[in-house]
Amino acid sequence: MKQIRIGLVGAGVVGSNLLQLLEKNRQTIQTRNQLDLQVVAIATRTPSKIQHLTQIPISTDAKSIASREDVDIVVELVGGTEIASEVVHSALKNKKAVVTANKALLSEKGDELFQLAFENGVEIGYEAAVAGSIPIIRTLRDGLSSCEFEVICGILNGTTNFILTKMEEEDWDYGTALKVAQDLGFAESDPTFDVEGIDAAHKISLLASLAYRSKVPFSNLKVEGISKLKSIDIQASKSLGYRIKLLGISKITNGGILTKVHPTLVPLNHPLANVMNESNAVFYKTVEAGAGMVTGKGAGGLPTASAVLADLIYYGSRIRIQDKILENNSYPISKKSREQENKVRNYLRFSTLDKPGVLSEIARILGKNDISIASVQQKESEKEPVNVIVVTHESNEGNFAQSLSEIDKASFIKEKTVAIRLLENL
Amino acid sequence: MKQIRIGLVGAGVVGSNLLQLLEKNRQTIQTRNQLDLQVVAIATRTPSKIQHLTQIPISTDAKSIASREDVDIVVELVGGTEIASEVVHSALKNKKAVVTANKALLSEKGDELFQLAFENGVEIGYEAAVAGSIPIIRTLRDGLSSCEFEVICGILNGTTNFILTKMEEEDWDYGTALKVAQDLGFAESDPTFDVEGIDAAHKISLLASLAYRSKVPFSNLKVEGISKLKSIDIQASKSLGYRIKLLGISKITNGGILTKVHPTLVPLNHPLANVMNESNAVFYKTVEAGAGMVTGKGAGGLPTASAVLADLIYYGSRIRIQDKILENNSYPISKKSREQENKVRNYLRFSTLDKPGVLSEIARILGKNDISIASVQQKESEKEPVNVIVVTHESNEGNFAQSLSEIDKASFIKEKTVAIRLLENL
Repeated sequence: MKQIRIGLVGAGVVGSNLLQLLEKNRQTIQTRNQLDLQVVAIATRTPSKIQHLTQIPISTDAKSIASREDVDIVVELVGGTEIASEVVHSALKNKKAVVTANKALLSEKGDELFQLAFENGVEIGYEAAVAGSIPIIRTLRDGLSSCEFEVICGILNGTTNFILTKMEEEDWDYGTALKVAQDLGFAESDPTFDVEGIDAAHKISLLASLAYRSKVPFSNLKVEGISKLKSIDIQASKSLGYRIKLLGISKITNGGILTKVHPTLVPLNHPLANVMNESNAVFYKTVEAGAGMVTGKGAGGLPTASAVLADLIYYGSRIRIQDKILENNSYPISKKSREQENKVRNYLRFSTLDKPGVLSEIARILGKNDISIASVQQKESEKEPVNVIVVTHESNEGNFAQSLSEIDKASFIKEKTVAIRLLENL
Repeated sequence: MKQIRIGLVGAGVVGSNLLQLLEKNRQTIQTRNQLDLQVVAIATRTPSKIQHLTQIPISTDAKSIASREDVDIVVELVGGTEIASEVVHSALKNKKAVVTANKALLSEKGDELFQLAFENGVEIGYEAAVAGSIPIIRTLRDGLSSCEFEVICGILNGTTNFILTKMEEEDWDYGTALKVAQDLGFAESDPTFDVEGIDAAHKISLLASLAYRSKVPFSNLKVEGISKLKSIDIQASKSLGYRIKLLGISKITNGGILTKVHPTLVPLNHPLANVMNESNAVFYKTVEAGAGMVTGKGAGGLPTASAVLADLIYYGSRIRIQDKILENNSYPISKKSREQENKVRNYLRFSTLDKPGVLSEIARILGKNDISIASVQQKESEKEPVNVIVVTHESNEGNFAQSLSEIDKASFIKEKTVAIRLLENL
């Protein structure tokens, strides 16, 4: 039986779940995979929290683990991009495989890290970095290895999906739903990272890089969160036959790759529309296998630890094989698409004064910018501002930007206009 | 670059799609996977159909391919269990890996074939055998390798899902929907294999074997198809908040594994309820990663060929590796569960005479067998038989069998009672 020696860096919730899971599944993995996974070194900031889980001496020196002679795989569960980056660099240079759940690190420095891994003849596993327990990395890399991707997109952040679900089902406003998410531990006390779409952007950049085997760095993405959404947007969308979801979207368009994160009106009969609460899902469309979707739990200590363990089994099996099955993980140059020319439909909510001529002026400016109107909703209201909801036909993203900047200067506009894209032809 | 030599046996729709896909993706696979996949021998019944696709001489002698010195992987796309079985046996004995789309063969003879593969140090790939383009085999084997399964179930037959969708959406009866499926090429002229659940049973037996690493032979399964369903069942279920789906279900119960195929009332908000038309889906529940679902195209020449190619890339990469990463695919002994003790809820449709005392007699017999009633629907009708629709609370499967055999003997019963299980606590 092959013995694989693991150095664990970072032992918070995921790390301690991993230690327990390794113990519980030791025998099964030995029988099924002919693999003996042994943790030989642990570093964490607060050793006292995990002392009851292990016999191994626990240090606080993260960096030393990465250079230890007796470690085959370094598991990086520190998070952040500073110490984690040092640990991963050092591990790769010392020819150790790395398994990590750190999407921020890979999204921001993946290109350099995968190149370093390739040069050193080792691999980086990151199943746990995207969509928790959903084995989407393995699915893209092995399961759909014969496919050419046209689109990959998904609900990649559980916190925002929970907030949107509650805004709809309980008719709560954004602030209330966020507060409940915080009370339940689904959202951080500073929720920016989740609600402004940054976390989802990290994840879609990783998925897109893998699907297209092209560099899709975080810095290329345009990112919009959900904090501007109001109850009326949720309800009006529903009455129009849509549900608002925060999607990470990457698609081939205009000869390049367009990748972005924004709230999106998803038709109620689309499979992504029915992924509720804190669940995650990834939808894809390929030339050969058509469309498909995977869905499941996006986060949580045990689900994430199970993804780390699946990577340990997979990469552990591949270590010390003489005829290396090593892929070149380094990406070709980025092919960024011209977003201004991307065609979209929009849901537009104008907050206006209640006076004659408003709708005709809005329609005039949209028309001048080559945007035609598909439907208008305006309910009789006793107080200003009045919400005028317009769903448009397709036009270039650039035309929308131009129109809204003109309209928002008008004296009858009381608040910045909210634009939410309809799910594009995915 | 590693060269892998392929012997292709059977070149119908999937085989010819595979030849084209291999040609189209040759360069990509060389770059990404450092693998040169070369078809060196082809056998098929009608060589004329694929002569334009290849330069290779085409023979009609399937068996000779399996013993050729210059073949590394035999791709078996013959179908059926006779010639296919001979070809696969011979290939494994000659120490060649096998990639196949043949669920019937593996479901009926898998135990013996996987054992033979293990003894000869080679592997069998069968991603294309279950749910076409959905990479569920890779997902179970690698992606969720760290998980303990509680349930695996799915919509595994596109033909029956198409028929059920049309019965609901177009309000067609079963015969009309079947006829349309046949006209569109989704159903065979003899549809028994699909509509009676045999195809779904082959597939769930393969998925269950893999999820539980236990023998789940086809012969252990109880299989029920959709041919007895009427429009009224579809409509009544919908009004109760359910949609009827033909599910293959395998779950841990009573200390064993219970595996079966039957029409099932799935709550409308369950993800399986929203898988429509000819799509397939697999839902699972694990201890570690919770619940998840994968969905996509279940069949078609190109999707199935893409799954075969994914297997060729995967197993091709593993061939001639000195330190073999070979799993023992042979299963432990079967742990069959006692189905009679499995607890279920049922939708029961009684076809009765329109006279007093019928409902009370039905209720009496159910009650005597420890089955309590959750709801009753009976619409006023001018003609007999009258449909009495009862939804029950939970009771043992054995109690239902006993009750219905008693009730169906009553003189007021005009047609055999239809029982459709509600989705169990999955």
